[in-house]
Amino acid sequence: MIKIGIVGGTGYTGVELLRLLSVHPDVEVKCITSRSEAGMPVADMYPNLRGHFDLAFSEPDTAVLSQCDLVFFATPHGVAMRMVPELMKAGVRVVDLSADFRLKDLDVWSHWYGMPHETPKWAEKAVYGLPEVVRDEIREAQLVANPGCYPTAVQLGFLPLLEHGLVDPARLIADAKSGASGAGRQGSIGMLHGEVGESFKAYGASGHRHLPEIRQGLSQAAGKAVGVTFVPHLVPMIRGIEATLYAELSDPADFERLQTLYEDRYRNEPFVDVMPFGSHPETRSVRGANQCRMALHRQEQSNIVIVSSVIDNLVKGAAGQAIQNMNIMFGLDETLGLKAPALLP
Amino acid sequence: MIKIGIVGGTGYTGVELLRLLSVHPDVEVKCITSRSEAGMPVADMYPNLRGHFDLAFSEPDTAVLSQCDLVFFATPHGVAMRMVPELMKAGVRVVDLSADFRLKDLDVWSHWYGMPHETPKWAEKAVYGLPEVVRDEIREAQLVANPGCYPTAVQLGFLPLLEHGLVDPARLIADAKSGASGAGRQGSIGMLHGEVGESFKAYGASGHRHLPEIRQGLSQAAGKAVGVTFVPHLVPMIRGIEATLYAELSDPADFERLQTLYEDRYRNEPFVDVMPFGSHPETRSVRGANQCRMALHRQEQSNIVIVSSVIDNLVKGAAGQAIQNMNIMFGLDETLGLKAPALLP
Amino acid sequence: MIKIGIVGGTGYTGVELLRLLSVHPDVEVKCITSRSEAGMPVADMYPNLRGHFDLAFSEPDTAVLSQCDLVFFATPHGVAMRMVPELMKAGVRVVDLSADFRLKDLDVWSHWYGMPHETPKWAEKAVYGLPEVVRDEIREAQLVANPGCYPTAVQLGFLPLLEHGLVDPARLIADAKSGASGAGRQGSIGMLHGEVGESFKAYGASGHRHLPEIRQGLSQAAGKAVGVTFVPHLVPMIRGIEATLYAELSDPADFERLQTLYEDRYRNEPFVDVMPFGSHPETRSVRGANQCRMALHRQEQSNIVIVSSVIDNLVKGAAGQAIQNMNIMFGLDETLGLKAPALLP
Amino acid sequence: MIKIGIVGGTGYTGVELLRLLSVHPDVEVKCITSRSEAGMPVADMYPNLRGHFDLAFSEPDTAVLSQCDLVFFATPHGVAMRMVPELMKAGVRVVDLSADFRLKDLDVWSHWYGMPHETPKWAEKAVYGLPEVVRDEIREAQLVANPGCYPTAVQLGFLPLLEHGLVDPARLIADAKSGASGAGRQGSIGMLHGEVGESFKAYGASGHRHLPEIRQGLSQAAGKAVGVTFVPHLVPMIRGIEATLYAELSDPADFERLQTLYEDRYRNEPFVDVMPFGSHPETRSVRGANQCRMALHRQEQSNIVIVSSVIDNLVKGAAGQAIQNMNIMFGLDETLGLKAPALLP
Repeated sequence: MIKIGIVGGTGYTGVELLRLLSVHPDVEVKCITSRSEAGMPVADMYPNLRGHFDLAFSEPDTAVLSQCDLVFFATPHGVAMRMVPELMKAGVRVVDLSADFRLKDLDVWSHWYGMPHETPKWAEKAVYGLPEVVRDEIREAQLVANPGCYPTAVQLGFLPLLEHGLVDPARLIADAKSGASGAGRQGSIGMLHGEVGESFKAYGASGHRHLPEIRQGLSQAAGKAVGVTFVPHLVPMIRGIEATLYAELSDPADFERLQTLYEDRYRNEPFVDVMPFGSHPETRSVRGANQCRMALHRQEQSNIVIVSSVIDNLVKGAAGQAIQNMNIMFGLDETLGLKAPALLP
Repeated sequence: MIKIGIVGGTGYTGVELLRLLSVHPDVEVKCITSRSEAGMPVADMYPNLRGHFDLAFSEPDTAVLSQCDLVFFATPHGVAMRMVPELMKAGVRVVDLSADFRLKDLDVWSHWYGMPHETPKWAEKAVYGLPEVVRDEIREAQLVANPGCYPTAVQLGFLPLLEHGLVDPARLIADAKSGASGAGRQGSIGMLHGEVGESFKAYGASGHRHLPEIRQGLSQAAGKAVGVTFVPHLVPMIRGIEATLYAELSDPADFERLQTLYEDRYRNEPFVDVMPFGSHPETRSVRGANQCRMALHRQEQSNIVIVSSVIDNLVKGAAGQAIQNMNIMFGLDETLGLKAPALLP
Repeated sequence: MIKIGIVGGTGYTGVELLRLLSVHPDVEVKCITSRSEAGMPVADMYPNLRGHFDLAFSEPDTAVLSQCDLVFFATPHGVAMRMVPELMKAGVRVVDLSADFRLKDLDVWSHWYGMPHETPKWAEKAVYGLPEVVRDEIREAQLVANPGCYPTAVQLGFLPLLEHGLVDPARLIADAKSGASGAGRQGSIGMLHGEVGESFKAYGASGHRHLPEIRQGLSQAAGKAVGVTFVPHLVPMIRGIEATLYAELSDPADFERLQTLYEDRYRNEPFVDVMPFGSHPETRSVRGANQCRMALHRQEQSNIVIVSSVIDNLVKGAAGQAIQNMNIMFGLDETLGLKAPALLP
Repeated sequence: MIKIGIVGGTGYTGVELLRLLSVHPDVEVKCITSRSEAGMPVADMYPNLRGHFDLAFSEPDTAVLSQCDLVFFATPHGVAMRMVPELMKAGVRVVDLSADFRLKDLDVWSHWYGMPHETPKWAEKAVYGLPEVVRDEIREAQLVANPGCYPTAVQLGFLPLLEHGLVDPARLIADAKSGASGAGRQGSIGMLHGEVGESFKAYGASGHRHLPEIRQGLSQAAGKAVGVTFVPHLVPMIRGIEATLYAELSDPADFERLQTLYEDRYRNEPFVDVMPFGSHPETRSVRGANQCRMALHRQEQSNIVIVSSVIDNLVKGAAGQAIQNMNIMFGLDETLGLKAPALLP
């Protein structure tokens, strides 16, 4: 049994880790920390876990965490950065679901996250854990930076185009939409049901923290700096991200082979589903599941490739991908604990 | 491996059976029928099942169904009634999720379902499959009538009071609320998102088909005919039932021991959770899970017992309970395939 | 033009007052106060008002408010209580949408609102402003306590039965459901979209502040103390209240004349609509409108009268009723500014 | 009083016309037709209209319609086309909310609507009624083709850029999202609450009927054929459209003057609101109101102009714009009956 610690377990990512880990056969959750709720049984905060976990939240304690095999960080940015060095020293492996170790350019990181990075060494060593790109590095990694939710949906959708150099890398557009759980479980007026329900809007349209992360990943795939416009939107639902991606094909003749190219790219990926050309993936088809589904479109004689890509932001966009990374790191079947189909309807 | 057949698989109950059976270790779904969609892969209709089932819908064929160990009927009323005799003869066991075999008084059945009952013999033999009441009979049954969604939530909430004769059985009130999936997957205008969204209403307040089923179950528990008023309501959500139950305590002093009495009644029930006195069960705490959660309340010096009881109408109210019944019928661990926690948020 | 002041304008009741007053021909909003947002244009907080109001929030200033003809309080409880005396002295008329002046028994008030009442004199003089009951007193009142949202829906539904003494007054049950805007516009985790969406639950089932207000109103109608059980529920929608009411008819023969009795009771009420017997009022049929719709039901040979009553909690349950009261107080056509139909779909 | 007829009144556009016309001081609705529901009072189908309209649906009868001053068509495509000639002959003016007269190229029309156009003469004469573009022609028109919902939001957002030739007209992208009422009130399974709720998806991504309409309008504004990619999406809400528009600025220096240019373009438009640079218009800020709100964005040093544009698809996208057109045609104040603010929250 892999001994698991979770730091910062009161948010939506924390409860989702517990939900998924509860059906994972090879793990044992040893502790789940929360400074504000220490002492409260997790099932009191999350009644869906009644009967599944007897655990209570505890104060974060590096000594206790050091006895785990793997620690998940489900904290706001700035926390993992400070605690990771001690855990690394103790030989603990870490999957950080926060943004602390996702960007390689720490000036960019500081610009978007509003603080200096305190552990540049580990930022350099951390593996950006998108298994479909760097599975082998994840296997060996001690510290994995779990990708953001939007960046997962956007990168998976664009990758085959960029890896094959089929599109103009300066003209990428990602119009993305997310359910409200992406904003976390914090008492902000803007995320009240009375504010979010029955309404739709763009946000962060002049710049969002996931933009540099997306740019970094896509540039790596393209082998050169890409130009990408990314606009997130808030959907009046709880879970789910859909990203509609637009790219200009250099040679429209390539349209003929795109579907095959996508299918080949992801043929052996257990969690990426390339649907038939012209399909419309629904977010509910991945609700609760560690799955990305995508489909390609073309309008009339246009040379714009349209890709629609969906994930559950809390699963393939956070907790599920973290467990996928854990499975890889510990040499387990990558799908262990992640096989349940999505909840539909 | 238990060989499973599903008749009438295109509705929400059908896809829910498949979703749950896909993680059940001891079953193999041999066929799923649909007259209208024969030939279509189930994953084309229900994209959450892509990668989980290769099966296509087939024409209902008793010869094929007769080779199954267990057949689930997820059909409108009037279908199982006609097909069951042949399956019984072939030694197949059946869990009928429709209403065909739920009522023992067939005049009442005919009145509410608008047709004569064609197989009175099997209506008599059928076991009304509420495991918390008749587990032993289910074990031996060849034909199980799976309870309706509202009746499950209402009966489980009232049972301890009636079994102990603590309340006035003539004055029971069940104010119940359901998500829209309870109405099934049929193209009726009244169930459009534009009609159901952002609105709330009672329906069937002058009489609903689940009323006689509730009355039958409660009368059996009370050992005499009960008087129950049942008003269902439509909630702008997809899954979930909450029933708020009101009963008049004969002796207000009994309030002291109610909580213990409920906890004792359900202590060994894997799928009934009695929450602390004064709790407010949320439907999301059981979303996707085969679970009923309930809690007791009292207002000031009142002698009215208030019980709030929640289930997922598609799981403990339909497909999950059907699989629970199957597990009992085949001598399996009753919780097999039904252990995953609810999806929250 | 009636000069209007609004104290506490940042909540949902505040914006709703502005929305409705913007189409009222005889009023002029002179000031709208908010301690926290003083200086901010109201249209910056509520973009639906862009182009309709140039006003900015201002610090509450009794001197300014004293120059108004009418002041609406849309504040948390405890605020109006302290400011009212000075306004009364200045001859200003007040409609208080908070709970400060609703209860006549101030011990009960203190018990539920957790503070002593500071202006008992005005609590005694205040008129509880349910126009369908005390229209004439409202006309003359200087201080009107605007009824709560649940109490409005529940009282209007029960009144005819109690006024005619047709039911057992000790056995009234009100099972009520509300959209999330009833909880106001405050950053509480429990009201996040991620918590409220796609879920349903009872709350305050052991006791809610609106219970004593309901009891006071119904007791007055019955001419004696009534026994009422009131359980509110949270619906995943923004606006709307539905109350399903249960009462035991002393003489079942009275069922014959109930519909006529209700229609007669409300025949001249512009904002109460008695629908045909057996109808199911939907909350969307009153969304945005100052309207209560209700319908009666009976199940088989039962002697329980069922009434389903719906309002928009922010309109007939708050801002609309406040303007209706204002119209009465100033001798205007009671429907002025309140004639627009509900927004459906 | 303008005598009004409505053909095809049972859909969401029909009820919305009635809701808005009920507060319009200068009109009288003489008849509202429905072949399927002839005889049913409109208030029985749309309970929000109880007390507002005594009218019942009637069989469509050209003789009766010919006595109206103005007839609105709220019918599926193919109906207005056949009835219009007779009404034109009778001197009746028509605002057609269907697609019959929107496209000038009838080959394109036939391709997308699957039938030959039967009245090419009137298709040529019809004025495409976007008041912000052709107000003077609308004034004189006998037949106005009311723009589609998506085309209204998209055209208003792009117009200033194209009219001034500031962007590459070959590279326009419109990523649009709509609530479910856009699909009308028809019993299709795909629009059930159980299918639409809590999910998000693109649809028509390979081609949608509004694409040629958008292309026609934008090409006219640009003075040459434009290349536009248009992808609609379905949002789990009832009303509202948001379109996020992307265009490549030929000269990035033009960014400096874009805000002023937009404000100038729409300064005198009563129903277009240019919000401050960097704002995020919400669909709820226009819910129920005849309003388009929009805002501009730029990401870092990018040369992509981002415009977010919102409308209520049933109001500025249908019934409200139709009444705005009527006001213009009859020389009334253009805002008559259209002044109420949006319903928020």
